[in-house]
Amino acid sequence: MAQKNGLFPKNAWYVALTSDELKDKPFARQICNINMVFHRKNDGTVVALEDFCPHRGAALSLGYLEDDGIVCGYHGLKVGCKGQVIDMPEQNPKKIPCIGYFPVVEKYGFIWIWPGKKDKADESLIPLLEWANNPEWAFAGGVFDIKCDYRFMIDNLMDLTHEKYVHGTSIGQEEIDESPVITEEEDGYIVTSRYMHNIIAPPFWAFCMKNNNLDPTQRVDRWQKSKFVPPAAVFIDVGVALEGKGGKDAPKEDKVRCTVIDFMTPQSETTMWYFWGMARNFNPTNEQLTQDILKGQGGIFEEDLEILEYQQQNLARFPDKSLISLDIDAGGRKARRILNQMIKTEEEGYIDNK
Amino acid sequence: MAQKNGLFPKNAWYVALTSDELKDKPFARQICNINMVFHRKNDGTVVALEDFCPHRGAALSLGYLEDDGIVCGYHGLKVGCKGQVIDMPEQNPKKIPCIGYFPVVEKYGFIWIWPGKKDKADESLIPLLEWANNPEWAFAGGVFDIKCDYRFMIDNLMDLTHEKYVHGTSIGQEEIDESPVITEEEDGYIVTSRYMHNIIAPPFWAFCMKNNNLDPTQRVDRWQKSKFVPPAAVFIDVGVALEGKGGKDAPKEDKVRCTVIDFMTPQSETTMWYFWGMARNFNPTNEQLTQDILKGQGGIFEEDLEILEYQQQNLARFPDKSLISLDIDAGGRKARRILNQMIKTEEEGYIDNK
Amino acid sequence: MAQKNGLFPKNAWYVALTSDELKDKPFARQICNINMVFHRKNDGTVVALEDFCPHRGAALSLGYLEDDGIVCGYHGLKVGCKGQVIDMPEQNPKKIPCIGYFPVVEKYGFIWIWPGKKDKADESLIPLLEWANNPEWAFAGGVFDIKCDYRFMIDNLMDLTHEKYVHGTSIGQEEIDESPVITEEEDGYIVTSRYMHNIIAPPFWAFCMKNNNLDPTQRVDRWQKSKFVPPAAVFIDVGVALEGKGGKDAPKEDKVRCTVIDFMTPQSETTMWYFWGMARNFNPTNEQLTQDILKGQGGIFEEDLEILEYQQQNLARFPDKSLISLDIDAGGRKARRILNQMIKTEEEGYIDNK
Repeated sequence: MAQKNGLFPKNAWYVALTSDELKDKPFARQICNINMVFHRKNDGTVVALEDFCPHRGAALSLGYLEDDGIVCGYHGLKVGCKGQVIDMPEQNPKKIPCIGYFPVVEKYGFIWIWPGKKDKADESLIPLLEWANNPEWAFAGGVFDIKCDYRFMIDNLMDLTHEKYVHGTSIGQEEIDESPVITEEEDGYIVTSRYMHNIIAPPFWAFCMKNNNLDPTQRVDRWQKSKFVPPAAVFIDVGVALEGKGGKDAPKEDKVRCTVIDFMTPQSETTMWYFWGMARNFNPTNEQLTQDILKGQGGIFEEDLEILEYQQQNLARFPDKSLISLDIDAGGRKARRILNQMIKTEEEGYIDNK
Repeated sequence: MAQKNGLFPKNAWYVALTSDELKDKPFARQICNINMVFHRKNDGTVVALEDFCPHRGAALSLGYLEDDGIVCGYHGLKVGCKGQVIDMPEQNPKKIPCIGYFPVVEKYGFIWIWPGKKDKADESLIPLLEWANNPEWAFAGGVFDIKCDYRFMIDNLMDLTHEKYVHGTSIGQEEIDESPVITEEEDGYIVTSRYMHNIIAPPFWAFCMKNNNLDPTQRVDRWQKSKFVPPAAVFIDVGVALEGKGGKDAPKEDKVRCTVIDFMTPQSETTMWYFWGMARNFNPTNEQLTQDILKGQGGIFEEDLEILEYQQQNLARFPDKSLISLDIDAGGRKARRILNQMIKTEEEGYIDNK
Repeated sequence: MAQKNGLFPKNAWYVALTSDELKDKPFARQICNINMVFHRKNDGTVVALEDFCPHRGAALSLGYLEDDGIVCGYHGLKVGCKGQVIDMPEQNPKKIPCIGYFPVVEKYGFIWIWPGKKDKADESLIPLLEWANNPEWAFAGGVFDIKCDYRFMIDNLMDLTHEKYVHGTSIGQEEIDESPVITEEEDGYIVTSRYMHNIIAPPFWAFCMKNNNLDPTQRVDRWQKSKFVPPAAVFIDVGVALEGKGGKDAPKEDKVRCTVIDFMTPQSETTMWYFWGMARNFNPTNEQLTQDILKGQGGIFEEDLEILEYQQQNLARFPDKSLISLDIDAGGRKARRILNQMIKTEEEGYIDNK
């Protein structure tokens, strides 16, 4: 049967949780309109199931773990890692239907889920995060629950013009508006870039320079390069280098370079989980610096929330209005084109298979 | 006109309030999708009306009592016990339409309402509560507002297997799972029973034994017998007796026996009022014991709330799933069969009368 | 295209804000189902726009003011006073569509909005407020957000019978019920009046008498005259005069006279902004008296809120019930007839123009 035309592909890897979030208890999270429950087996590997006891519909996430199964907290039905019923007191578990399970992989400090067809779940499709498990980089991040379409956040990140207006006291500066944005395809990915030459670093970057033994009052070249990795990741290569030293290709001692990490996981058509973070390619062992950047970046990303949630509400308030797309929106526009194609391909697949 | 096929019979007595809840002011409560207002006449008898002033639709429950009428707090219209307008300043009350009233009876410490056809309201259909007004018994209870279908609570009470999982620290114990449940019809009622022989009493029952001069470390026989009284009551005969003394038929000095009282009154299709309590057939004059049991039972019943409210939500989240029914669910299943038959009979009655 | 048959006319002036509410930042308010943003130009004049950035739908009210435009806080698009895009960094503003703007006038301490057809917005249609900018009068008021149909408040104010029941401790008194209400048309307006002769002043009026050097224990003649000014204003000429001195036409030194000011601005079909206040024609320079009356009147009007919000809810709870209209409701009923005619005329106008 053809599935309802959705706003997000299902045959794709999404970040469901950070590794830190999943401890020794079941954990409930809605992903792509599916209520899921996650838990770890004794060997540490992660299991993802529908959060629905096949007996009477109780939420399995209210239950407890026993061996590698999850025991429903209502009548003791125990579900295994493939959604099969493996035990229930005084009952024949074989007579009770299975529930759905989902391919899940833990990698790079994240737990990745594939909500679609299991036979298409290829672990090699998980994007490569070069900075993860790399001693030259440090990383910290968090997760927000945002009441907006996940594509609005992709638009937001593929056009950093908004930094001047939304983040004026940290990373925004006049020269952002004045520098042209370039949108191109690179290795099959959508990339938007902006370069600002011979400028004064804004407060966030001045702080980073100080922490890499650079004089923050010196003029710099600044870069921003946003890469959209379908369906729902944006990685932004950002930094400043002392003026004339080669920009992002400058020697390490003349620059500060980070990658902004963004995973936009649909919760429903109008809500999302936002996994954000920053990987830093300088002074990686300074834990205080890691915490300072985490706190600063959390504050910066909170500035986006109000804008995005109002934007979502406004589309319902003004149903006859349509959005327009300018050159600065080319990245988001191209990202949507890829998403729409992925969704269309899935739907055709369902039709072929029906 | 045929009424909409509902989830609850209307030609039936439901507990609307405890006697204690209704004092000297109007009291609003929604029962079976109807917003009602209750008040007492000077002679103490209870009146139940639609909570709607026939003049401009104000809530009568915001008004005040005068003689045996309720005066609307907006323009002073006064409604009598049959919903008739008996006074309004400078107006001819006969020109103003009546509102609906409902048969209501106060008995056993509860106020009972009949939301359906008045001519079918037979007071003798109110279930007999043998323990009420009986000096050998003590009673205490409370009321909860629960966001679930009232039938989920009936299921819950007709299968006490869940005690081990939901109430593990008070009344649950391993042997519950291991003892078979028996479902049968007794005097036209659905009854499920479970007997556990030669066991150690769980904490709640050990506490009761101490309060009836029994040694709580002695081995006991335990019984649970749930009786469904349509449409929405479950009474559970529960207790422990010293091992080999005859179980629930043992002499009074060798056992502790209680009746768990449960009235499930539909508020709407997805919400209910839960009137719960415990009647105790030992040491009835010990008021401190009454309060201790009340507090303990309130805590136990709160453990069910989260499970049941998530269960209700889960049915909306997984609309394609259906619940399955095992032997332990036979009590709840048979109860629903009776409810469905009652609803069908009502609907045919409406069709015949139209 | 014919617009949806609504509950409120759109070709009319409504109070949108008090002058005090609009300071040096954009201000969002929903009027007649339209989300609007208001701001002041440098010369102090007021601008009203749709609260929707024509680029990506962000709320303009989250932006900031620059010269006489409002700059979107997301990407810096700047909208002018007629909804035209006047600037956007690195973009050609002429390629971006306009948004809607609304005729707006500031007068008498209020900001008036015309949500309908601009070519019909005639400033002379704003009702004359004789007391405003008049040194013989003092005024103070406030605004409430009420969850009810604006017409319920018009009904409320056109029938002051409710004072006895809702406001019994301040302005209500027995004689209200006993005095007939007269409903008539005066200069094309609906007017309801009630006169109470030779009575004792209720607490609020006794307080006013003391503040005009009158003995509050003396008998008085009291009057109430509510005038409905379509679509959504009610002005109530109220006061007491020493008995036999001519009532509201008595010499100034023998009476205390006020005008209750009420503007009911629809937010949506089921919510409204209530701008209330009192203009006083005695002892106008006593600022402490102004504050005392403001506080007292605020408390009195809060007593209406609960009644009106429950009334709104009750209509949804009892969809089969209809309201009845007595002689005391004649003012509200005639007001609705005028409103319905205004709405019908508008709709015919839309059909003619389509």
